[in-house]
Amino acid sequence: MSKSDRESGLACPIALGKYQNIVMAHGGGGRLMHQLIDGLLRPELDNPWLAQNHDAAVVQISGTQMAFTTDSYVVQPLFFPGGDIGKLAVCGTLNDLAVAGAEPLFLSCALILEEGFPITDLERIVRSIAQTAEAAGVAVVTGDTKVVDKGKGDGLYVNTAGVGTVQIQPPPNPNLIQAGDWVIVNGDIGRHGIAIMAEREGLGFENTIVSDCADLSALIKKLLDVDTEIHCMRDLTRGGLAGALLEISQTSGKSIELQESIIPIAAEIVGACEILGLDPLYVANEGRMVIIAPESSGPAVLDIMKNHVLGQTAVSIGRVLPGDSKQVTLRNSFGTNRVLTQLSGEQLPRIC
Amino acid sequence: MSKSDRESGLACPIALGKYQNIVMAHGGGGRLMHQLIDGLLRPELDNPWLAQNHDAAVVQISGTQMAFTTDSYVVQPLFFPGGDIGKLAVCGTLNDLAVAGAEPLFLSCALILEEGFPITDLERIVRSIAQTAEAAGVAVVTGDTKVVDKGKGDGLYVNTAGVGTVQIQPPPNPNLIQAGDWVIVNGDIGRHGIAIMAEREGLGFENTIVSDCADLSALIKKLLDVDTEIHCMRDLTRGGLAGALLEISQTSGKSIELQESIIPIAAEIVGACEILGLDPLYVANEGRMVIIAPESSGPAVLDIMKNHVLGQTAVSIGRVLPGDSKQVTLRNSFGTNRVLTQLSGEQLPRIC
Repeated sequence: MSKSDRESGLACPIALGKYQNIVMAHGGGGRLMHQLIDGLLRPELDNPWLAQNHDAAVVQISGTQMAFTTDSYVVQPLFFPGGDIGKLAVCGTLNDLAVAGAEPLFLSCALILEEGFPITDLERIVRSIAQTAEAAGVAVVTGDTKVVDKGKGDGLYVNTAGVGTVQIQPPPNPNLIQAGDWVIVNGDIGRHGIAIMAEREGLGFENTIVSDCADLSALIKKLLDVDTEIHCMRDLTRGGLAGALLEISQTSGKSIELQESIIPIAAEIVGACEILGLDPLYVANEGRMVIIAPESSGPAVLDIMKNHVLGQTAVSIGRVLPGDSKQVTLRNSFGTNRVLTQLSGEQLPRIC
Repeated sequence: MSKSDRESGLACPIALGKYQNIVMAHGGGGRLMHQLIDGLLRPELDNPWLAQNHDAAVVQISGTQMAFTTDSYVVQPLFFPGGDIGKLAVCGTLNDLAVAGAEPLFLSCALILEEGFPITDLERIVRSIAQTAEAAGVAVVTGDTKVVDKGKGDGLYVNTAGVGTVQIQPPPNPNLIQAGDWVIVNGDIGRHGIAIMAEREGLGFENTIVSDCADLSALIKKLLDVDTEIHCMRDLTRGGLAGALLEISQTSGKSIELQESIIPIAAEIVGACEILGLDPLYVANEGRMVIIAPESSGPAVLDIMKNHVLGQTAVSIGRVLPGDSKQVTLRNSFGTNRVLTQLSGEQLPRIC
């Protein structure tokens, strides 16, 4: 199906614009994915927990505040510099629990295998799932295995769900952010997406670009343990830094201004993005997050982060602005502003 | 790949017999699936919760005993008489929580959509998910949407995970079953698998065979509310009645004897199975379960079940035997016994 075919559909019965059929961008973390979620999924499944619009739902069970989350992983290739689909599936769910202010406790893992998939590859991936979970001190306690016919999958798809207990009150949430808050990232951005793209397309950069794929829950635990005031946390996955901040801005109604020159991006990632025609602000990460914290606790947050291996280059890259214009802007060194917008989809499909 | 190609692989590095690559039967609920789980997944992910070998893991969180489970759904076709993949995905996870003795509370739902999938079909399925969850009094509180390239999926795959609170002590478990226990089913078996097969293959039976797909949690709640002693419950899915009882027998070390003439199977299912060359004891169900209960509570269990719409034809079909020979046998009207064995895979692939 060509791009023009895809976009020529009749008006759809639901609020999905001109699309009658699913296109890749509906899974891309951008505007079309939000249209699918907000136009179809959310109205049907409507409930107060989904309305929290967070990476993990925070629910009350027998007096305990728990976080519950799920993600499926369809990354291609399954193995890449810095990780594989198994490590990604565990880290992704750990990170979603942790940014909701929870200590991850138990994971589930469900595999959809394509007929013909090499069992040695499966073994490598399951070992990676086990090692990543063990390193994080969580257990994969329940699972499922399905097999689909050859040609009806792509080797292996993984789903993980996770539960954990919320450690701070109120749990971090986009609606808590305030004018003046610092916007902090834990490291340089864009590595995961470029690593996947380089591996997939066989691009030979001078130095192999390694994914940032990592479990952020230990770093976040250090922040929660000292009871630093934190308003919102979000891991940067599909849609990248820009996608995450645009979501937070939309949910909170607040505007965010970033200082372009301070945003950490490695020279090799800038170079790769220039060659590939990509904007690193929108490139996916799998071990990077933003923390939005009041100015009063910003220095303490930075200090704790810099003392952890996954936050050594943490830096405050911007502020939450007064007013309710719901914009994310990028201020450059000449003092002019660029307004960031949601892309229709992911620049790089199937990076997670 | 032909069957002989599939089976000609070199010895695999792990304990998966002669298979180097995944075959359909690895997802079929039979012997090969158990080899995959016990030979690869369980040793890598080893922990006491997985070792419970139950449909849902029972975990302790902040002093509350909770059940946690997951399943992916790859049924084909997506719509069938009596349900669709959405209803199936919600009922399946509700049933897995309920048979662990838990009250289902919250579900997750993750979709893997194939590029080109009709949005109207997605809408029908999401509505079905929402209606089934609402009818059961549970909420889908967190989700995920991924899109894969055309030719890398089969329309739609669904994963649901679920959490609930365990309502009885000790939670029902295969290891609790005792010689003399009654083996009770809630209704006639084999409808789901035959309904899927008839729809998939365009078989025109005189009367449309409707899947038994149903949420069993309300029926199970009635049993738990009166604190009837129950040793084990299991919903009958892949592998059918025989598969479930063989698993229970293996886990518990006990033997089970069934009375062939009492096992309820509708004449139309017997007829369809004869035409298709299938054994109804191994055909999948999605709204049927076995309850294994001590003789002292058997009549009360039957009484409660018969008063619920999903248990009107409930019947005790056999007993747990003394000894530890781990056999499931079928006693016929001539008084001779047939020993049931695990099939290598599912007779009908992709029925859930």
